[in-house]
Amino acid sequence: MKAGPSPEEIRRHNLGTLLRFVHLRGPASRAVLAESLGLNRSTIMALTADLTAAGLVREELPRRPGRRAGRPSLVVRPESTRVYVLAFDIGVDRLSVARVGLGGTVLDRRSADLPRGPVDPAELVTALAGAARTLVRKAGRDAVCVGAGVAFPGIVRRSDDRVVFGPNIKLYDVALGEMLARRLALGVPVTVGNDADLGALAEQLRGAGVGCENIVYLHGDVGIGGGIIVGGRLLGGEEGFGGEIGHMIVNPGGRACACGSRGCLDSEVGERTLLDYAGRVQPDGQSGRDAVRAVVDAADRGDVTAREALHRVGTWLGFAVANLVNVFNPGMVIFGGTLRDVYLGSAAQVRSMVATGALAAPRDRVKLRTAELGDDATLTGAAEFAFADVLADPLQVLARLREPEETAPVP
Amino acid sequence: MKAGPSPEEIRRHNLGTLLRFVHLRGPASRAVLAESLGLNRSTIMALTADLTAAGLVREELPRRPGRRAGRPSLVVRPESTRVYVLAFDIGVDRLSVARVGLGGTVLDRRSADLPRGPVDPAELVTALAGAARTLVRKAGRDAVCVGAGVAFPGIVRRSDDRVVFGPNIKLYDVALGEMLARRLALGVPVTVGNDADLGALAEQLRGAGVGCENIVYLHGDVGIGGGIIVGGRLLGGEEGFGGEIGHMIVNPGGRACACGSRGCLDSEVGERTLLDYAGRVQPDGQSGRDAVRAVVDAADRGDVTAREALHRVGTWLGFAVANLVNVFNPGMVIFGGTLRDVYLGSAAQVRSMVATGALAAPRDRVKLRTAELGDDATLTGAAEFAFADVLADPLQVLARLREPEETAPVP
Repeated sequence: MKAGPSPEEIRRHNLGTLLRFVHLRGPASRAVLAESLGLNRSTIMALTADLTAAGLVREELPRRPGRRAGRPSLVVRPESTRVYVLAFDIGVDRLSVARVGLGGTVLDRRSADLPRGPVDPAELVTALAGAARTLVRKAGRDAVCVGAGVAFPGIVRRSDDRVVFGPNIKLYDVALGEMLARRLALGVPVTVGNDADLGALAEQLRGAGVGCENIVYLHGDVGIGGGIIVGGRLLGGEEGFGGEIGHMIVNPGGRACACGSRGCLDSEVGERTLLDYAGRVQPDGQSGRDAVRAVVDAADRGDVTAREALHRVGTWLGFAVANLVNVFNPGMVIFGGTLRDVYLGSAAQVRSMVATGALAAPRDRVKLRTAELGDDATLTGAAEFAFADVLADPLQVLARLREPEETAPVP
Repeated sequence: MKAGPSPEEIRRHNLGTLLRFVHLRGPASRAVLAESLGLNRSTIMALTADLTAAGLVREELPRRPGRRAGRPSLVVRPESTRVYVLAFDIGVDRLSVARVGLGGTVLDRRSADLPRGPVDPAELVTALAGAARTLVRKAGRDAVCVGAGVAFPGIVRRSDDRVVFGPNIKLYDVALGEMLARRLALGVPVTVGNDADLGALAEQLRGAGVGCENIVYLHGDVGIGGGIIVGGRLLGGEEGFGGEIGHMIVNPGGRACACGSRGCLDSEVGERTLLDYAGRVQPDGQSGRDAVRAVVDAADRGDVTAREALHRVGTWLGFAVANLVNVFNPGMVIFGGTLRDVYLGSAAQVRSMVATGALAAPRDRVKLRTAELGDDATLTGAAEFAFADVLADPLQVLARLREPEETAPVP
């Protein structure tokens, strides 16, 4: 039970709210800001002045002024090339690093293939930091990095950004956030999140789920992950491990799962299972997004084995979705990563299972949708995670970054 | 995206926070309030003066003053006999109505058996209002009813307190909140919630879950219900239908469920199933809490059939708990209603299923507990629902109640 905020806390909250508005919805006139945020125009002016002085936004005449007479309202625009974050996406077979500007624009990016199999933590951090350094160098002298975020395919403890369990790339108990922050030496913390959690966040803020407060996001890569938005917030649970939908048991006694259990959604619907059913397991055990898409394409062309494989997988996916609809009463279920393709190839079966397995009341309301951000959902979510601090307290973060650095600068 | 609150909103928030503190934690000195709420003592004095003037709290010398020299700090005490709510619990075979004072004390109560089978909405409302009227009459002239809450065994739409689906007492699509409010004519709205949701709330506020922000509460009556607390808040979903754990499919193709599906937790673990396995189905199809307890007692005494019945039921209960641990990363899973007894009779099996089915990371943290409030959990939750308005904005609610009534007074 906490008392209400102090005037200073309110000012910080309002600065953050204004900055978040233009970050997520784009440039806006003072008039629009005043109406949207429920503040009067003099307050908007004062807040904008502070954010402008800090170099976070700038005010401009609108590019396409309206026809009405009189002086046009100035437009507040995020400083999207000057203020940026670093976003990292650790996929099972690919690393991506991007420089993302305030406002959400990807300014620059690098990707590299990651050989499947065990990953050495130190080598991983070296690879990520190396790519980031290149991006930072190209950013220019007056650009400022205000945060860094990592999407990781496994279980992450939110309190200290530590990777707890990453079976798909064989990474366990690694202080990834701390290691990468030290190596980057940009004076910003590195927040690490589960990839599906970040995909969910991205779809809610910038994708299919905009405007929806209750979302279940299912993400397919090698494994199946989940991210859940409840009342507009990411469900974390006690330590940030929440949303592990991939390890819901849908088929008791079913296929063995990498987690040690049986019949998890992951083991019944994951990439290897689909390829197995479709008779397309690669001789070297490798697979990937393209292999999954090839099954869906083959089914589209009438391949019976591929169709049956998708039907089997769609049955378990449908069971899981029905359960999630009953438990969460979501406005939307979003299928992302390879599950986007799997869902498109098995939608009739998924919907049929939901029709019989979900209660009428929550079923009537839910929409089943595919992710809009495509393969960039997790990277976008990592960027949003990285922006969280500066959006919560813009001036404080900027002030801290301008203090003489205690850590060594990037060479 | 909303701007920060106005000074008036902050004052209301602080009034509500102070009132909530003494409501939930009991009488507190100004010194304790100042420290707990993070406000200075002059603010606490002003807030207390306002609440005292409104008749919501009173200040007294402590009953057992400390030994330290000087004037003892006054204790702020909720006006628990003067300010009350009406709490209704609609069980499958019993109605309970209580008058609950600010601070959570049950001041008076009435219960009546409800014959199992279809219930006529008008008769139900008449029975509830009649019992309430007796309690209100006995309350005295200076007592004020500040709210009313109903726990209902089925699906309730939160936006308009409407019963959508109540298969266990055959009540469908009834504007229960509105009907009861009109009949009570006390000038307060009647909020209606799912019984398991309210049980979860009660256990979090006053029972086993105090201090825990992430709780899964499983409630057994005739059916199995669930209430979930995420980040300190009740999970509602889009329309308040969330938390229907009883209709998670745990055993695909399993026993037919009243909802039309198969293998729901409800149909695998519910009262009828347990009694069926134990060979104790009543000839008239009736059952109830006593019958469930009798099975657990028999198992305790070594009855093999009863033990096997609990083992079977415990297996599916364990599957469900494992899934919920993976999805929610809760700090606690609480078993209430008849599931309290079922869990106590099958704890080893439930724990064994959780050990194999839940991921290590969230499993390490979760505690499995039985409800502390016993059969009163749902009634207590209904009272807390009813107090919500006055705790959110104390003076406003009191002022509204003192306006000349437009509705007829209770005869």
